[in-house]
Amino acid sequence: MRVDNRKFDELREVKITRNYLMHPYGSVLMEVGNTKVICTAMIDDKVPPFLKGSNIGWITAEYSMLPGATVMRKVRDAARGRIDGRTHEIQRFIGRTLRSVVDLSRLGEKTIWIDCDVIQADGGTRTAAITGSFVALVDALYKLYNSGQIGSIPISDYVAAVSVGIADMGPVLDLCYEEDHKALVDMNVAMTDKGQFIEVQGTGENSTFSRIELNTLLDLAEKGNKELINAQKIALGSIGKLIEENKIDLGEDYEK
Amino acid sequence: MRVDNRKFDELREVKITRNYLMHPYGSVLMEVGNTKVICTAMIDDKVPPFLKGSNIGWITAEYSMLPGATVMRKVRDAARGRIDGRTHEIQRFIGRTLRSVVDLSRLGEKTIWIDCDVIQADGGTRTAAITGSFVALVDALYKLYNSGQIGSIPISDYVAAVSVGIADMGPVLDLCYEEDHKALVDMNVAMTDKGQFIEVQGTGENSTFSRIELNTLLDLAEKGNKELINAQKIALGSIGKLIEENKIDLGEDYEK
Amino acid sequence: MRVDNRKFDELREVKITRNYLMHPYGSVLMEVGNTKVICTAMIDDKVPPFLKGSNIGWITAEYSMLPGATVMRKVRDAARGRIDGRTHEIQRFIGRTLRSVVDLSRLGEKTIWIDCDVIQADGGTRTAAITGSFVALVDALYKLYNSGQIGSIPISDYVAAVSVGIADMGPVLDLCYEEDHKALVDMNVAMTDKGQFIEVQGTGENSTFSRIELNTLLDLAEKGNKELINAQKIALGSIGKLIEENKIDLGEDYEK
Amino acid sequence: MRVDNRKFDELREVKITRNYLMHPYGSVLMEVGNTKVICTAMIDDKVPPFLKGSNIGWITAEYSMLPGATVMRKVRDAARGRIDGRTHEIQRFIGRTLRSVVDLSRLGEKTIWIDCDVIQADGGTRTAAITGSFVALVDALYKLYNSGQIGSIPISDYVAAVSVGIADMGPVLDLCYEEDHKALVDMNVAMTDKGQFIEVQGTGENSTFSRIELNTLLDLAEKGNKELINAQKIALGSIGKLIEENKIDLGEDYEK
Amino acid sequence: MRVDNRKFDELREVKITRNYLMHPYGSVLMEVGNTKVICTAMIDDKVPPFLKGSNIGWITAEYSMLPGATVMRKVRDAARGRIDGRTHEIQRFIGRTLRSVVDLSRLGEKTIWIDCDVIQADGGTRTAAITGSFVALVDALYKLYNSGQIGSIPISDYVAAVSVGIADMGPVLDLCYEEDHKALVDMNVAMTDKGQFIEVQGTGENSTFSRIELNTLLDLAEKGNKELINAQKIALGSIGKLIEENKIDLGEDYEK
Amino acid sequence: MRVDNRKFDELREVKITRNYLMHPYGSVLMEVGNTKVICTAMIDDKVPPFLKGSNIGWITAEYSMLPGATVMRKVRDAARGRIDGRTHEIQRFIGRTLRSVVDLSRLGEKTIWIDCDVIQADGGTRTAAITGSFVALVDALYKLYNSGQIGSIPISDYVAAVSVGIADMGPVLDLCYEEDHKALVDMNVAMTDKGQFIEVQGTGENSTFSRIELNTLLDLAEKGNKELINAQKIALGSIGKLIEENKIDLGEDYEK
Repeated sequence: MRVDNRKFDELREVKITRNYLMHPYGSVLMEVGNTKVICTAMIDDKVPPFLKGSNIGWITAEYSMLPGATVMRKVRDAARGRIDGRTHEIQRFIGRTLRSVVDLSRLGEKTIWIDCDVIQADGGTRTAAITGSFVALVDALYKLYNSGQIGSIPISDYVAAVSVGIADMGPVLDLCYEEDHKALVDMNVAMTDKGQFIEVQGTGENSTFSRIELNTLLDLAEKGNKELINAQKIALGSIGKLIEENKIDLGEDYEK
Repeated sequence: MRVDNRKFDELREVKITRNYLMHPYGSVLMEVGNTKVICTAMIDDKVPPFLKGSNIGWITAEYSMLPGATVMRKVRDAARGRIDGRTHEIQRFIGRTLRSVVDLSRLGEKTIWIDCDVIQADGGTRTAAITGSFVALVDALYKLYNSGQIGSIPISDYVAAVSVGIADMGPVLDLCYEEDHKALVDMNVAMTDKGQFIEVQGTGENSTFSRIELNTLLDLAEKGNKELINAQKIALGSIGKLIEENKIDLGEDYEK
Repeated sequence: MRVDNRKFDELREVKITRNYLMHPYGSVLMEVGNTKVICTAMIDDKVPPFLKGSNIGWITAEYSMLPGATVMRKVRDAARGRIDGRTHEIQRFIGRTLRSVVDLSRLGEKTIWIDCDVIQADGGTRTAAITGSFVALVDALYKLYNSGQIGSIPISDYVAAVSVGIADMGPVLDLCYEEDHKALVDMNVAMTDKGQFIEVQGTGENSTFSRIELNTLLDLAEKGNKELINAQKIALGSIGKLIEENKIDLGEDYEK
Repeated sequence: MRVDNRKFDELREVKITRNYLMHPYGSVLMEVGNTKVICTAMIDDKVPPFLKGSNIGWITAEYSMLPGATVMRKVRDAARGRIDGRTHEIQRFIGRTLRSVVDLSRLGEKTIWIDCDVIQADGGTRTAAITGSFVALVDALYKLYNSGQIGSIPISDYVAAVSVGIADMGPVLDLCYEEDHKALVDMNVAMTDKGQFIEVQGTGENSTFSRIELNTLLDLAEKGNKELINAQKIALGSIGKLIEENKIDLGEDYEK
Repeated sequence: MRVDNRKFDELREVKITRNYLMHPYGSVLMEVGNTKVICTAMIDDKVPPFLKGSNIGWITAEYSMLPGATVMRKVRDAARGRIDGRTHEIQRFIGRTLRSVVDLSRLGEKTIWIDCDVIQADGGTRTAAITGSFVALVDALYKLYNSGQIGSIPISDYVAAVSVGIADMGPVLDLCYEEDHKALVDMNVAMTDKGQFIEVQGTGENSTFSRIELNTLLDLAEKGNKELINAQKIALGSIGKLIEENKIDLGEDYEK
Repeated sequence: MRVDNRKFDELREVKITRNYLMHPYGSVLMEVGNTKVICTAMIDDKVPPFLKGSNIGWITAEYSMLPGATVMRKVRDAARGRIDGRTHEIQRFIGRTLRSVVDLSRLGEKTIWIDCDVIQADGGTRTAAITGSFVALVDALYKLYNSGQIGSIPISDYVAAVSVGIADMGPVLDLCYEEDHKALVDMNVAMTDKGQFIEVQGTGENSTFSRIELNTLLDLAEKGNKELINAQKIALGSIGKLIEENKIDLGEDYEK
């Protein structure tokens, strides 16, 4: 049995609280077990230099942990004067994943800033950040759409992400910190509702893994992401419906 | 009448949620109206260089705002590579205020890290940070005391802080962002339960103020801090009692 | 008696040397006892981004200490790659204070850079910086006025600042380093010639203070600032007269 | 046909020049087509703080591109004052991969610094860096072994890495810059001689990919890495033999 | 005899490899004995702010050492977050030297970026950087000329640089690291083919030197630079001829 | 005639004020015409890492300009977060020059910090900094000697520095800003009282210079430095005598 009595292919409890903060266009408190991440989506009317004049938008993500999110106090990047490598890696991952399901050319010259701030960490913070940010992003796009700033919601599909890994007891889904810490293999997988992969990042932690193990991990990730997308659908309710229609009409187009 | 229908000497609703996070020794969600600050207190077994070998402890504070806490997204200090002047000013204020009621020589060579992260800002974030941090600090000291790491709770008195200012309608207590933004004079006052001042910071914002106005503002601050300390006492319950006894026995001593 | 034989309400010797340097529009060597600060005012034809196109000017201040100004060599901010918190706090204080008596809308889109470089420190450097900078600022504005770049001198009143505090012997005016170092309460007060307050910053240094003590300190500050403004008037001579007329005609207006 | 007339599953020409520089313990010029990377391995007798006193060693990697390596001059990280996110991501990838086949406990308290400097870039620089660094690492460990500083060569297996991706024409092995630039999916795969995976990093570049496509890409990566490891074996000659024996005797052990 | 059996006035073997990299306009591998520097010249269509609208071009140089270039690994400037003083000094030297023989007004508003990356260091890296960069610069200017981007090659003369110094055995030419390390006096001299000086930088390393010694060193530098310029002429072949004609026609003019 | 009516070989007025500040061991206000530099020497009981345990001391120099020292306000290095290349170059020059006449092994494990802060700039700031710092250094060493912290004053000779250059009217001594700004050749020369050279830094500013011109410049520099050293001798009075004796007894020794 796992440390928290879950089955090997069982997610922790997932809780998605929309409109968590009053100021941002979209804001979500994403909880996966004890991992809690505030995800916000805010709109900026500027784009990065490489897109100026292109009529194409951009989505960028930043990720951070509160000093009190972990057992040992995490020194602030601001106090150290620079963003550490792990943070860079994670925020690039989040940004790429969300951009892959948004038709940026239908956004116009806007930047959507995604901010993921981990207020409590217990493993899987980057994947919780993606799953929660997607919901905040949809809320922000919906407000843009509703206020006539964009003509349609330019999302081709749902996106969620989950961690899988090889623990003492073998391959498991959604590792908590205690499991993650000791895992031989650690993999983060972002997927769409159609079952397509957006990102697969698997690493042997001072270890290696076989093709067979890789396949088992991918099976677990498919199961987990399907359940997470289901939670997103429930949280989004009728707004989610718009995406699902969109998915058929626009996504097809977009993927060509 | 004020924008939110309060009387000139009325605080916004105060809510203190203890044990808000699972990892820190002390953690509080401090809410004053729509202003929400996560305050944590964590223990480090090292002290700054100037205290090494002195057997004296230290309390230091850091303050930050989530990018999504404000209407316009706040650029992260970490992304800019340096902490801005306002943040410096605030975290020095918080640290000084808390240190003034703690007998650091009874702490031993430990540093208590206070972290104040504003998740939603609506004026008065620095004073909410002080009022909330005090409760997190007490919880942390109580755990140290309870586990035998310190022999007594080295606090001489309660501390709260409140903002007062001169708005269009005259002097008011506890300004929300809309009021603060337009105030002619802005003052932050930190006080103890005994009614002593710890810090008074008053500034004419492109304006000046008379001695009479100053006195009115100080009266309002006294009223506000008394109510905030009452809320701290209710939140701390029986642990607070320990401080009150302490206040009599140890505080006297300490203030000499 | 105080360490330097002064009475409790006695300023150190004040010396204001105008036109100390050849290049800046205004430059002052401000001496208060052994504390010596070079204060300069220089004109830049740009304004910060938030004022572009507004036809409003700006005043900004920077403060620094030479490494040789103190007993222990002060490491340069440039060598450490960042400005420390204390410096941030002080330069914000100087800038706010000077801006509060200048009608920036009559300056046009210009920035006045105030630079305060402490060449010798013996307590009260930030207040000496304000008192000296005001004189450099007047000289710079007078040159702008004289050369037709502005139509009037947009100053509504004199400004000086002084430190007061509670030392061993009780409340005292204008603390030297040895007194400041051991003071229980330390307060910096900036005032106008009309006796209005611009900024009050009082801090219990590991201590607290009563309302009565606060009032005594404010009395001392009023006395000290009156004398400092007198020294400014003598130093400025006939130029100062222009401000005094201005104070009546324009200041009234400005303060509305 | 591909832009350079290769078959879809064909590597570019691979050239491994050992002892390329005179000072480092190991140094390799790694060439894969027009991509050229100088890989060095240098020994430091210190370990990072978290390993002090543990008798365990460490391997860390840094990666950089010369400004002249690319068509558009790449601004130096040093000139910008910080390492960019892509560089962070890459050097963490290189370090993890090499550490996964080294028994750090047999190294003693030493750090091996791997430096990968791209002097000419034409796609696949990070994977060329891994494949070349492995050879430099073996040379460095062999010198440590030969001079009696370590008792055995603590490597459990060969490591190489290759990029695969989905180009216009479908899945291809070892993308050059022109292909990489337009690829819909981009994947970097690090493997051992035994066919185990160390790291799989696949990303849909504004696109997604199916499980079937993922499998085809992994097949290509297995083929490519087998050929790259063959080139390493030829380059290392008799020293490589030591690893192969090691692989049987020590690797088994190590993987438990 | 010298450590490498050279005579006191003998250069090490000089090797200039043109077109060393595929992307830059000009690229040279400059070898002087074991010192190896990659020198590239790249074109940017922007100029620094102080030249905007002037129709004048600019040449700027950057210098760096690979971590593996020296016996003790050199920490990257990027990792330390700032460029060290020695690097600043060297890159300013390279830029000034090259600019002194180029008529920037005939370049138009272009910046030529010179990058000198030392891949192996054995003394004299900054002078090798200048000698090699000159060749890369000529190649870049020739390509600009050949493609009609500039009307003539705006170079007034060849430039080379060499180090001389006072070693144990007395004054010597072209010091290798072992000699340089122990030299009492170290001097770098940049000269033109006409025998004019561009830069003379002589330093007593914890020592001093007489006017007579200075003269002997300058004699050696003249001899060395003549030989280096000869090597440049051979390397440049027919392109060099263009400079020599230019030297007569345009240089005269230019030097007025 | 020169802009300020000097002869081509005439220094500006030189004024050396010792004991300018109260805290440092040595402090000098060095004035050369309108150029004014505060030079201080402070003692630190630590040495840089490379000297720990060697029983050898160190001298290091920092140089800076006040923002108000120049016509156009100079942005502070601290505000930009890094020291610029010119400053690096200058402070390395000052440090090397002073170290060359001090027997660091007789200093013990102390660092002498030399700080040169230009309060008013009119050309020749770096050479004035050296000439003034030497006097501050002697004062500091004398205090160390007098208080028994060192057994003798470990200086082998006087050091001064002067700028020479080729202006419109030909070679001139001690250029003021207006001359320096337009000079074709600019040279800084540091020398000892014995007429030995410590550093020669000559640069063609977009120009070149002949061996004959170089010789004329060196003649001027010799004359200027002799006069500056004379001014140092007068300023130091009887303390200078100690150096002159020292020069005979210890210097001889030291230079071997």
